[in-house]
Amino acid sequence: MYAFFAYNWQVRDQWFAWCEDVPNEELLKDRIGGIGNILHTLLHIVDVEYSWVRAIQKKDDKPIDFSDYTTLRQVKALSDQYRDELEEYLQAEATTNKQKTVTASWLDGTFTKEEILHHIIAHEIHHIGQLSVWAREIGKKPVSATVLDRGLF
Amino acid sequence: MYAFFAYNWQVRDQWFAWCEDVPNEELLKDRIGGIGNILHTLLHIVDVEYSWVRAIQKKDDKPIDFSDYTTLRQVKALSDQYRDELEEYLQAEATTNKQKTVTASWLDGTFTKEEILHHIIAHEIHHIGQLSVWAREIGKKPVSATVLDRGLF
Repeated sequence: MYAFFAYNWQVRDQWFAWCEDVPNEELLKDRIGGIGNILHTLLHIVDVEYSWVRAIQKKDDKPIDFSDYTTLRQVKALSDQYRDELEEYLQAEATTNKQKTVTASWLDGTFTKEEILHHIIAHEIHHIGQLSVWAREIGKKPVSATVLDRGLF
Repeated sequence: MYAFFAYNWQVRDQWFAWCEDVPNEELLKDRIGGIGNILHTLLHIVDVEYSWVRAIQKKDDKPIDFSDYTTLRQVKALSDQYRDELEEYLQAEATTNKQKTVTASWLDGTFTKEEILHHIIAHEIHHIGQLSVWAREIGKKPVSATVLDRGLF
């Protein structure tokens, strides 16, 4: 499971680098589908991963106000900060205690840790797929989604 | 790992059902990004999964001609046929012999079985993300990508 997190973080950082060549107006421009713009898609990915891992850890949620995040630098900084908090835990605990019960303040239901970890992983890959279409719409080659040749295995 | 295949197959079948309400011209219409149309994105997912699992099994590749597949029924039938061939193997072998060497006739390089299985899974989720944008472009709600509440865990 941890390899998928490492993959998502590598791809996400490549998208942050990709965004550096794109004007901020393009990053915030309304687009069809998903979260509706490039920057807030990345912010949403960062927020959802952090929120669910904290739910697994039985820590309080820390909701963010998307309107406070309007620049690439802010979103990248939050991603870096959260990853610093999550990395060690996920490296050590991504395959332990799979049946542990998880609940969340923002969603009814009871889940297992295993289910939530799968959800976080698929959630990011799905939204990155949306970015790849929007990238082509603005005439830029998207970041490669391949898992191969990334030094992950 | 197998749970991700089960997830992808469930989501894929929901997309096939979703496509039933969409005219064939829309399914084959040129779109920006990815494989360029909805039907061939689904065909590509099916083809890539099958090709890589056969590579893991050290079986010959069976290339397909995309121009032979122009209807939803054909693509769904191929997906069903291939899944019948792969399901038992993946259920039994998705987490065994992870370091087994894999090569492919269509790509240079040597990979591990673990790497290829991760690649197949992420590949499908990524392309499904693209479909979700195209769905909104034609004014239809996409299939949910959530892993939760699918009875997978």
